[in-house]
Amino acid sequence: MNSAENAKNAVDAQAVGTNETTGERYERGLAVLRTVGGQENPAVLDSLADIAPALGHMTVAFGYGDVVSRPGLTLRQRQIATVGALAALGNAAPQLRFHIGGALNVGVSPAEIVEILIHTAVYAGFPAALNGIGAAREVFEARPEVAATPVDTEPLPGDRYERGLAKLTEVDGHAGDQVVASLRDIAPDLARYIIEFAFGDVYSRSALDLKSRELATIAMCTALGTAGPQLRVHIHGFLNVGGTREEVVEVITQMAGYAGFPAAINGITAAREVFHERGAR
Amino acid sequence: MNSAENAKNAVDAQAVGTNETTGERYERGLAVLRTVGGQENPAVLDSLADIAPALGHMTVAFGYGDVVSRPGLTLRQRQIATVGALAALGNAAPQLRFHIGGALNVGVSPAEIVEILIHTAVYAGFPAALNGIGAAREVFEARPEVAATPVDTEPLPGDRYERGLAKLTEVDGHAGDQVVASLRDIAPDLARYIIEFAFGDVYSRSALDLKSRELATIAMCTALGTAGPQLRVHIHGFLNVGGTREEVVEVITQMAGYAGFPAAINGITAAREVFHERGAR
Amino acid sequence: MNSAENAKNAVDAQAVGTNETTGERYERGLAVLRTVGGQENPAVLDSLADIAPALGHMTVAFGYGDVVSRPGLTLRQRQIATVGALAALGNAAPQLRFHIGGALNVGVSPAEIVEILIHTAVYAGFPAALNGIGAAREVFEARPEVAATPVDTEPLPGDRYERGLAKLTEVDGHAGDQVVASLRDIAPDLARYIIEFAFGDVYSRSALDLKSRELATIAMCTALGTAGPQLRVHIHGFLNVGGTREEVVEVITQMAGYAGFPAAINGITAAREVFHERGAR
Repeated sequence: MNSAENAKNAVDAQAVGTNETTGERYERGLAVLRTVGGQENPAVLDSLADIAPALGHMTVAFGYGDVVSRPGLTLRQRQIATVGALAALGNAAPQLRFHIGGALNVGVSPAEIVEILIHTAVYAGFPAALNGIGAAREVFEARPEVAATPVDTEPLPGDRYERGLAKLTEVDGHAGDQVVASLRDIAPDLARYIIEFAFGDVYSRSALDLKSRELATIAMCTALGTAGPQLRVHIHGFLNVGGTREEVVEVITQMAGYAGFPAAINGITAAREVFHERGAR
Repeated sequence: MNSAENAKNAVDAQAVGTNETTGERYERGLAVLRTVGGQENPAVLDSLADIAPALGHMTVAFGYGDVVSRPGLTLRQRQIATVGALAALGNAAPQLRFHIGGALNVGVSPAEIVEILIHTAVYAGFPAALNGIGAAREVFEARPEVAATPVDTEPLPGDRYERGLAKLTEVDGHAGDQVVASLRDIAPDLARYIIEFAFGDVYSRSALDLKSRELATIAMCTALGTAGPQLRVHIHGFLNVGGTREEVVEVITQMAGYAGFPAAINGITAAREVFHERGAR
Repeated sequence: MNSAENAKNAVDAQAVGTNETTGERYERGLAVLRTVGGQENPAVLDSLADIAPALGHMTVAFGYGDVVSRPGLTLRQRQIATVGALAALGNAAPQLRFHIGGALNVGVSPAEIVEILIHTAVYAGFPAALNGIGAAREVFEARPEVAATPVDTEPLPGDRYERGLAKLTEVDGHAGDQVVASLRDIAPDLARYIIEFAFGDVYSRSALDLKSRELATIAMCTALGTAGPQLRVHIHGFLNVGGTREEVVEVITQMAGYAGFPAAINGITAAREVFHERGAR
């Protein structure tokens, strides 16, 4: 059975009485899904053809046709965000593996993927990072062209604390200082770990550029839905390292597909606060 | 070994020095669990008899005897809520499969179960919906009596946006308008997706009645614990489509067993705010 | 391949240009990890040596060398907190199994581990508790020295409600009364379940001391990130049953490693509020 055809029929069924746009959305989404997934006949459609072809249609027409097709972020940026968000959530292993493969398919390097997953340790903890690496290993091992040699052992120059403080200031400016300062009263060592570990050990690594790190951070914090203050700090951070407000809105909007509309809507509320704080451009 | 007996012994042990109520609660819960699970000797008791029979006792006496036995919702409504909540949480696959089977056992149709899982895409994202369908497939395939023919390809009449806007107004009234309006400043396309996708594509589908959709939505948002504003909007929505305040309190109370007491307590706080907004009846 | 050596090389690589502290942190962490994991050559390093040795290094040098090595809590207390947090999150099964084994290795008894997992039902729901018991079974069965006889069937004296109310008052004092009172208007039965089930059935069990229960509760609520009001109530509770402010800060800080820095930072914010409420010592 050609499940792409099957889901296409679902499209047409749903398109009855509407304009052609739904069919066009589906075709546009199918093309993007084929690019990301690297399959002519996307497995997600096969997996839904038996009992839920309409969900397959929505995945293609809405998820890929409406959202992932949007021009505001490159497919590379979108996969960095999705891999980060799914690794942070930690409850969608099949989709994490698919999107790690998708990241490779749109030009994210194995070294960058490993780096996104290491970055996850900061925002969702080491178990999320460790299980993310496990997913990456499965994907890498199935692709002989992917070199799985360690990619992340470059020496980091200087003192961890000084290196981390400089990076924190570069990313978060005063917002980061304030977070650290706010912890000094009862948890000074947690403040020190933010500087030494999060920024000195992780953010200082060169295998992923700072703008991509902050893009992934916004995706992770939006998807988790439990990190409101940190989401606001890192929307500032993303804008501080060259990101745009349009990109912020794009990546948060994309999370509607991976973590649900409440996560995206609440993320936009955080973005609005940050945009107001930063004032008119 | 008869693990129901084993757990019953745990009951009696715990009942020492108390009145007969604990034993009665256990017997009432066991009867309900047998109805939901379709097993004379519930597997959950077998699975706990070796190292944690008291947890088996609590599951039966508290979970089923105290909560699921309550008269405020039908078993059908309770299973719709539980399937939605566990699919949204995405971290309890064995329980999701059990409760999909339980939903079938109390009269929820395969088509309705698929619809609840599609509905999950709106509140917890596509990975939750896709993995939920995977769980449903496993349950359906083990039951030859369940027809697994696609159930969700009916055409939807009219324009997606107009259809969605009408449905949004039907469900959420002005509260929904306000959410959409609030996004128009920086994320107008996210607002459009709420109307076109969430309400035009998903809520407009006829395979699940609106009241059941909003019941599942309250369960999902309460269990996730990260969707406070949306929980309030959809408590309004549930009441707008024929639900009662008693049913709201019942479904939120039920979530104590599936997502913990903090989720339920915080859900009641949201319900209180909504009830106050709507004033005395 | 000796992956401990491999990761050690990563350490030294990263130590280039820094003082010796990084190497010392790694050695200290490796010693603690060997104690917790009961392995000369920690499996986590093997599992990362191929594509992410630096994550292995961070796990050892930061996770174990900086955090778990801290003197503010015993290894036994730290494993009780970690098992509770990972069971509550429900999305890190490999790490939950590892830390259940680690709890056994540092002197937490099988009966106490089962009790922590039963306790999880209160804060994260029965699915989390049931899946936690499943993880414990796997660990226990692999250790012939661990007796897996039921450990939790002791009779509890007196009336559930009276027993629970006394325990609630012992733990939470007026804060608990207020939570229960606040539910009496629209959800009186949820209030009753908190007393009868959470405190009468679970907290009243003798297999885990009250201070350890509240330590696990702080860890669970901090890691979940969705239980802010409950986290504050149980920070009070932990202090009410003999815990110290230093221990509160320690366990919340530890959660940075298991649930991410946002969870820990937000937990410290809750602790600050509680410390201010309780005033100077």
